[in-house]
Amino acid sequence: MTAQSGVTRELADFVAGSQWRDIPATARREGIRGLLNYVGCALGGCGDEAIGLAIHVLSPSFGPEQAGIIGRSERCDVLNAAFLNAASANVLEYDDTHLPTVMHPAAPVAPGLFALAEARGASGVELLHAFILGVEASCRVGNALMPHHYRRGAHITATCGIFGTAAAAGKLMELDPVRMNWALGHAATQSAGLVESLGSMSKSIGVGNAARNGLTGALFAEAGFTAAESAIEGKYGFAVVASDTVDLGKITSGLGAEWEILANAYKPYPCGVVLFPVIDACLALRKRITVPVDQIAAVAVRGHPLLRERTDRPEVADGRSAKVSLQHSVAVALLKGAAGIAQFTDAAVADPAVQALRDRVTAEDDPSIPVEAAVVEVRLADGSSLTEHVRDGRGTPGRPMSDIELDAKVNECAAFAAPFVDVPALIAAIRDIESMGDAAHIMRMAVPV
Amino acid sequence: MTAQSGVTRELADFVAGSQWRDIPATARREGIRGLLNYVGCALGGCGDEAIGLAIHVLSPSFGPEQAGIIGRSERCDVLNAAFLNAASANVLEYDDTHLPTVMHPAAPVAPGLFALAEARGASGVELLHAFILGVEASCRVGNALMPHHYRRGAHITATCGIFGTAAAAGKLMELDPVRMNWALGHAATQSAGLVESLGSMSKSIGVGNAARNGLTGALFAEAGFTAAESAIEGKYGFAVVASDTVDLGKITSGLGAEWEILANAYKPYPCGVVLFPVIDACLALRKRITVPVDQIAAVAVRGHPLLRERTDRPEVADGRSAKVSLQHSVAVALLKGAAGIAQFTDAAVADPAVQALRDRVTAEDDPSIPVEAAVVEVRLADGSSLTEHVRDGRGTPGRPMSDIELDAKVNECAAFAAPFVDVPALIAAIRDIESMGDAAHIMRMAVPV
Repeated sequence: MTAQSGVTRELADFVAGSQWRDIPATARREGIRGLLNYVGCALGGCGDEAIGLAIHVLSPSFGPEQAGIIGRSERCDVLNAAFLNAASANVLEYDDTHLPTVMHPAAPVAPGLFALAEARGASGVELLHAFILGVEASCRVGNALMPHHYRRGAHITATCGIFGTAAAAGKLMELDPVRMNWALGHAATQSAGLVESLGSMSKSIGVGNAARNGLTGALFAEAGFTAAESAIEGKYGFAVVASDTVDLGKITSGLGAEWEILANAYKPYPCGVVLFPVIDACLALRKRITVPVDQIAAVAVRGHPLLRERTDRPEVADGRSAKVSLQHSVAVALLKGAAGIAQFTDAAVADPAVQALRDRVTAEDDPSIPVEAAVVEVRLADGSSLTEHVRDGRGTPGRPMSDIELDAKVNECAAFAAPFVDVPALIAAIRDIESMGDAAHIMRMAVPV
Repeated sequence: MTAQSGVTRELADFVAGSQWRDIPATARREGIRGLLNYVGCALGGCGDEAIGLAIHVLSPSFGPEQAGIIGRSERCDVLNAAFLNAASANVLEYDDTHLPTVMHPAAPVAPGLFALAEARGASGVELLHAFILGVEASCRVGNALMPHHYRRGAHITATCGIFGTAAAAGKLMELDPVRMNWALGHAATQSAGLVESLGSMSKSIGVGNAARNGLTGALFAEAGFTAAESAIEGKYGFAVVASDTVDLGKITSGLGAEWEILANAYKPYPCGVVLFPVIDACLALRKRITVPVDQIAAVAVRGHPLLRERTDRPEVADGRSAKVSLQHSVAVALLKGAAGIAQFTDAAVADPAVQALRDRVTAEDDPSIPVEAAVVEVRLADGSSLTEHVRDGRGTPGRPMSDIELDAKVNECAAFAAPFVDVPALIAAIRDIESMGDAAHIMRMAVPV
């Protein structure tokens, strides 16, 4: 079987045939960090207005109480649970990022696994194994379609995430290769999501559907519902519909030898990734400023041209647009000494002191500065100035989030929207997931008693 | 507002602002025929293996019994009901066809309306009005993307059907223009479906999702869940993602003056549209053959080259592939004097007499023959021959299905899979839908007592 024909089946064979012993320790460790980050982000997002509205809309159609919603007391059928947990884990823009594709893999892939664990039972190893394979499938399909797929307007977290969702759920169901192939086929025909939706609540529908519909696809396949075997590579298949730049070999080459989850990063701040080094610099500067911060006269940021292109946004309307505003990020980091969820709310945007400082922030392109670096200069009212140069922002490949930083992030998320959670116990449980007989235990720890 | 900017909003304004008195009598009549054909097709499809499997898979997640499934005793939440009725109405390839796009508009659009009528109440006029507008929205979006959208591999019934589903459901909910715009935005970000899936059960997931997710989008919009306002025409919006040949003017030009439902046709036979004149000719020939039909030595068909390209298929594996087989269609029409649902089942394919006659059918291209015409010559064992030339096959633009033929089709569908239905009463009720206070009455007539 070549890389150009039968890639859907080849991917299905790999997922269906994978053994736990085949997963290297590095991938296992990153899988655990991915699950931890997922649960944390969902604890932070569960109180968001969009999630409350989604529950309001969907609850009249809720099926039996098979599965929980992280951070909330409602329970529902596995499909609605998958939708809501995915939307919640992604809604704050705080979830993981597969750096080669800028996809957020965990939000679609993980929820269906936890829902299945609650409804049917699954061990920690089984869930972790399926999660790692799901991330692998999503990211490989994404790799094959980049860059045109995203550039044209496909919201890759949703459009490619659904392949991982179906693969992971199918793995937990122990689908044979034929049925795994069908699960991927059902994923392909349901793939959807537009970049145009970003910045509106509608984004959450795309991410939620990737979780729900991928899981649905695996359930249909399990029952013998047939699909196109060449759903990805076929003449009228997903690849040709989704991108003008297709390299199907990226789906199959190095399967089992190279692991995409190792390219998965965790955000230190719930905002655009290009802002990370800027915020790092501002937090460092704040510690060096000995006068009151209202003495800041001006802030000058130098960075890669992409920084200004994506985030030069002095006017911010709400918390959502603040997440892509250089000016807002600088202002909160210097004034509050933090750039967490609380600093990207509508209330933080309306804070007069933050507003005033936003107006004093300017940015300048410097093509010699890499995208993961930035230089920030603060000029004080007395004429003096301080400069900070960050070469590798936290959460970028040269400076990944440490375990301690990840734990602190989970703590921050829970404190923001789910303060009832025993966070140390939850973190310990997830870190020890390989010895957990019942993976649903994690869900029970993540909802109110 | 020009046709190039704000088309999503312009379409939303039109749908939200439409008054019943604005709908011309011709469109009302065709809307009723469309609903009748929809209910008939769902009565025929409700017993299909794919529908049974889908209910098996989805029923563990069924919500409250808010809505029915045509021809079946199960009841479920409105979203699952929309999915299942859409899949059922389309599964036999017997549903309506919007000739300019070859889209099947009713299967996605109608189910959500009947589900809402059951759950919330709606008059016959309200439902019919919403249905006509939904078909309008689906077909106009499709017109704007043809021909590249379908040619590349998008299953247009699903990918564009979802716009009509959202518009129609939103109309029944009386959404204001802003919310109608959001409903269309939620539709855009959920648009999915691959031509590659045709020929497998997976096709039904695409059509079912178009019904479910369009309805979901309208429900989200009703609750204030925001979407991209330029979801169709935006820089990263649906149109640019979906097609390389986009003419947005086709969405907005002539709105309210030209009605797409007038280009909607109904199939006389549950098979490929190019086969209609061939079957008509065979049915006419059968009446002229005075010897036993086993005396047929050979059948020669002449037609437009598209006929052979799409349907020259002497070997047929099952009922599904028989629907695109010239040889099978000719054989059953001559042998059985019919080409209905029962003649395109696995059992009909396996019939030895049909098999034998299939082997004696040949086809020849004749570019001078239009696609809606065909010439069939039967040579008998005694050396004599009979020829029939059909210029306009039933169900083609020059020879649309009459009301009487449509009634007979509904009868055939119900007899095939839902014989308990009082078909004359059901047909009378649908034809009189404009005077019906409670449109859910139709659903009650279409399920077992």
